Amino acid sequence: MQHISWQDAPELCYVIGPYVVPLATVAPGEMFTVDTLDAFGNRVTGPDTPPTKVLSMPYVNPVTGPIYVEGAEKGDTLSVTIHEIKAGRDFGVSATIPEFGGLCGTSLTRTLNEPLPERVWIHPITDEGIIFDPNLDIPKIPFEPFYGTMGTAPELEAISTLSPGWHGGNMDAPDVCPGNVIYFPVNVPGALLHIGDGHAAQGDGEVSGVAVEIPTVGTMMVDLIKGRSIASPRIENAEYIMTVGNARPLEDAARIAFYELVRWLTLEYEIDRINAYQLCSQVAKVRLANMVDILYTIIAKFPRVYLPRRREMT
Amino acid sequence: MQHISWQDAPELCYVIGPYVVPLATVAPGEMFTVDTLDAFGNRVTGPDTPPTKVLSMPYVNPVTGPIYVEGAEKGDTLSVTIHEIKAGRDFGVSATIPEFGGLCGTSLTRTLNEPLPERVWIHPITDEGIIFDPNLDIPKIPFEPFYGTMGTAPELEAISTLSPGWHGGNMDAPDVCPGNVIYFPVNVPGALLHIGDGHAAQGDGEVSGVAVEIPTVGTMMVDLIKGRSIASPRIENAEYIMTVGNARPLEDAARIAFYELVRWLTLEYEIDRINAYQLCSQVAKVRLANMVDILYTIIAKFPRVYLPRRREMT
Amino acid sequence: MQHISWQDAPELCYVIGPYVVPLATVAPGEMFTVDTLDAFGNRVTGPDTPPTKVLSMPYVNPVTGPIYVEGAEKGDTLSVTIHEIKAGRDFGVSATIPEFGGLCGTSLTRTLNEPLPERVWIHPITDEGIIFDPNLDIPKIPFEPFYGTMGTAPELEAISTLSPGWHGGNMDAPDVCPGNVIYFPVNVPGALLHIGDGHAAQGDGEVSGVAVEIPTVGTMMVDLIKGRSIASPRIENAEYIMTVGNARPLEDAARIAFYELVRWLTLEYEIDRINAYQLCSQVAKVRLANMVDILYTIIAKFPRVYLPRRREMT
Amino acid sequence: MQHISWQDAPELCYVIGPYVVPLATVAPGEMFTVDTLDAFGNRVTGPDTPPTKVLSMPYVNPVTGPIYVEGAEKGDTLSVTIHEIKAGRDFGVSATIPEFGGLCGTSLTRTLNEPLPERVWIHPITDEGIIFDPNLDIPKIPFEPFYGTMGTAPELEAISTLSPGWHGGNMDAPDVCPGNVIYFPVNVPGALLHIGDGHAAQGDGEVSGVAVEIPTVGTMMVDLIKGRSIASPRIENAEYIMTVGNARPLEDAARIAFYELVRWLTLEYEIDRINAYQLCSQVAKVRLANMVDILYTIIAKFPRVYLPRRREMT
Repeated sequence: MQHISWQDAPELCYVIGPYVVPLATVAPGEMFTVDTLDAFGNRVTGPDTPPTKVLSMPYVNPVTGPIYVEGAEKGDTLSVTIHEIKAGRDFGVSATIPEFGGLCGTSLTRTLNEPLPERVWIHPITDEGIIFDPNLDIPKIPFEPFYGTMGTAPELEAISTLSPGWHGGNMDAPDVCPGNVIYFPVNVPGALLHIGDGHAAQGDGEVSGVAVEIPTVGTMMVDLIKGRSIASPRIENAEYIMTVGNARPLEDAARIAFYELVRWLTLEYEIDRINAYQLCSQVAKVRLANMVDILYTIIAKFPRVYLPRRREMT
Repeated sequence: MQHISWQDAPELCYVIGPYVVPLATVAPGEMFTVDTLDAFGNRVTGPDTPPTKVLSMPYVNPVTGPIYVEGAEKGDTLSVTIHEIKAGRDFGVSATIPEFGGLCGTSLTRTLNEPLPERVWIHPITDEGIIFDPNLDIPKIPFEPFYGTMGTAPELEAISTLSPGWHGGNMDAPDVCPGNVIYFPVNVPGALLHIGDGHAAQGDGEVSGVAVEIPTVGTMMVDLIKGRSIASPRIENAEYIMTVGNARPLEDAARIAFYELVRWLTLEYEIDRINAYQLCSQVAKVRLANMVDILYTIIAKFPRVYLPRRREMT
Repeated sequence: MQHISWQDAPELCYVIGPYVVPLATVAPGEMFTVDTLDAFGNRVTGPDTPPTKVLSMPYVNPVTGPIYVEGAEKGDTLSVTIHEIKAGRDFGVSATIPEFGGLCGTSLTRTLNEPLPERVWIHPITDEGIIFDPNLDIPKIPFEPFYGTMGTAPELEAISTLSPGWHGGNMDAPDVCPGNVIYFPVNVPGALLHIGDGHAAQGDGEVSGVAVEIPTVGTMMVDLIKGRSIASPRIENAEYIMTVGNARPLEDAARIAFYELVRWLTLEYEIDRINAYQLCSQVAKVRLANMVDILYTIIAKFPRVYLPRRREMT
Repeated sequence: MQHISWQDAPELCYVIGPYVVPLATVAPGEMFTVDTLDAFGNRVTGPDTPPTKVLSMPYVNPVTGPIYVEGAEKGDTLSVTIHEIKAGRDFGVSATIPEFGGLCGTSLTRTLNEPLPERVWIHPITDEGIIFDPNLDIPKIPFEPFYGTMGTAPELEAISTLSPGWHGGNMDAPDVCPGNVIYFPVNVPGALLHIGDGHAAQGDGEVSGVAVEIPTVGTMMVDLIKGRSIASPRIENAEYIMTVGNARPLEDAARIAFYELVRWLTLEYEIDRINAYQLCSQVAKVRLANMVDILYTIIAKFPRVYLPRRREMT
């Protein structure tokens, strides 16, 4: 099984775009493994190495890639089936970063207030789960790993790995996890998949801006849906079909996610647009994935159990 | 058991404020029943009575109240424990309303596009659940009733029953349901509780703007926490402590909810502010309650299982 | 000439609604004078009386009114022609108020950062203009007075005098000034006009949240346009026709203002909707009135010189 | 005088980034001329060539560049002094583009409504000004040309020429005009200046999404401020010092602009942060540049007349 490692890249990759020589090539249907650094490039390891000391913009959140997918062409859709994500070490890290996060003035929501203090957490990962703080007498947090960042190259743009967008990217969506299939638009030959920002656990919204950050070793398979394009990432599992909206303000992210969900329902199932809209109003679920990144991310989820009869595709 | 009915009011109530003579008085600890009209005043009953024909602003979403709570004074907190909500008839109604909803131009997000068509749905309610559309071969939707609108009077303002706010109001939050305790600020003598807008079911976000609307008969009990005030509604059940943010844009609603959650944690539990913020980033859940009303509503939920040791209150 | 004073009211008025007994009655075409307190009720007079010490919510921004306009009925439009606004004393005051303003965490944009410091400024008003700070060697600021708050009662709601809205209210728009005619919707018999929050000068956006606040004595005349209603306030002078949008986020305020401008142009002038939209794209001006209040305010301005031929009204 | 033309580029440039070989090199202090295509690549020339027929994303808004500035290094500031912008032909074009603009559902503010109709305008440019529509009896619009798009390369990102940002880009700010000096951050060797999207006239906000679009021939000079960096573009002329905020929602753009203005004032003039904030509240002006692009743009303007004494720089 092919193993793809950031260590084989000539330099770390901090943008998702069409300008970097592919790190590896995979075939549709091929199972492969990937290793990733954590969002801090594994450089934050304790109180003495806080983010603002060891990192400088824009060199944050390195991803592994680009991975060239054989046969992928503009107008296709790439699917990524994630089989497993293992932690690359026995602890996660997190931090509060001044002028970043959901409850403070930031570079985008600019305020004159003094920044919040910077603090680093080391979270041991055990077989029973994640220890948030040994001094707090609370249960371990389940290890539920996912990729905070996964996306395909835009046609012309190179987008910071800190931003989500139409291409996927830094969505910080816990639904990008083992057992789920993630779909991305293909805009360039080879699709150019990028993967990184492993999280061992994360709450909805990732409110402080940082999850339990880990390097990872993951196992996955890619496939292509030829000649069918999607506007924004989609996700599927046994329970839900899901659409993703990345935008600011947050209601625009929700509008995109629901618009794509209504479009999916009406194109592939026997239901008209207004009825699909109304059915969503009664049965849809919503995940606030992140309220901290350059764009915010909302996942709209439609329970499979309520899917109408599938439309005959011609 | 005292029964409080909108039928006993001299006229229907469309604002939540201090200016209407109380409809009834209840004592802390007293169990009572309340009946409510649906958000359309029970006047939308089929395709021939669409909202824009039978209703006119601001006479939409009548609530039952005000209910005067004995002993309530400014600075207290009112708790409402909901025991049961029964549907007041054997069907729910829903509708698309032109220039209202999450995926269209509205009176607040003004566009020059032609409005979406108006349509009415009648949803039979059976013992097995709610029939969305007899022509769609999908399972019945579980009957999971809640109050879309519940709140206490502000001190000076009279707020449309279509709007949520610091006082509660039209939050369209499925967590305002049987089994949960809802907390509201008390701003005036008697608190002046208002209740309405029963929903038999609703998806996250209530994306079309309308849920499965029903008149209700509910059973509940109120109580007072004397001398302790809250800024925004709170909710508790066996699984979560929850805070509510009502604002636009949606990220401001999320900020309020999380800020109040962090405040709650730090005041009542042995955890400092930054640690509480970070713990929320790893374990909190978020409900998008509505993305359609005059203000949007976000519920931030903290799982009880992760609550630190309770602080000794002096 | 009738003089209307807040001193004649049984108590100060902090909401704009239909529930308060009118303070005075005026006839269409009648010229009258009004005096107003400043937004702090004249209680902030120096460093020893900062807002958080001498004021408590919701008792902020008292207005003079309600003023009953003879013959005004729901569905009419009220015009207010402002002739003069004089400062009621020889100084203005301003302040930074913790958790209020455009560049800090606030009660609506909630952050965990420490609040900004509170500070009070006393600004002498001389015949040559306003002294910002005697220690700063800068020119005097021109005395350009206007009412920050002016509006008519909603039908059922009572709206805080701190909030703007469809009824006008706390728009903090420098265009509500002598020489201009301001139009408000009439929702209740007598219209119930409220006036306050005099500003001796203010920058666009009122970014700190506070202008040069003054009590005032103003001279004005009201009139009625019978049987014609408007959705949101409008303003006219020799140079522009203007529409007002009050909303959050700010783009929704801008959308409302421009939508109403396009509607005005197409209803009263010989131009179709798309052409009017496009013409606005080339010649309209925009004023950011406030980015600090409960709703933000945008004024869209169309230069009279580009007005097409007036439509024949039937 | 060196003339730099898009015609000399191997292919048209649709992103602003570090990945394209420079088209030309200029020296600080050197005067040069540049020609640019209009935002439609000069391909929309009448009703038969509407944007959706002749263009396809992401190949919209070609810019001339990159222009390499000798000696520019990361951490410097680039100034561009614009001397003249001439129209490259005797007419401008404009259009309504479905799902783009300020008063309709768009790709970011997603709605289910039918799109607005597409329409093309040809605006003759005469010595007396611009004819909006020969059928409308209104005065000619003054020819007030500026560049809608001007910016320097980010360090790693390649940003669509349709988007503004920290690097400048598609700000659609009428202040990027002859007589003004525009400042941009330098992130890469040579700064890599890109210029395009000439507008012959534009209203505040560019509400339909399209101005009077023209190809241009411009004359300008660049210079460097060595070792001083800025976070976001700045503009100066005889009347104002100006800062630019590019963000969504619009209040975040305003916050960035005002934050940078306060920072500028406090760093270079003898005034403290809170006093500068308050002075802005009384005398600043605001331009809404665009409310239609991928990010919105606000210009905060401080009148030079009120500038405090300049700080002694060490």
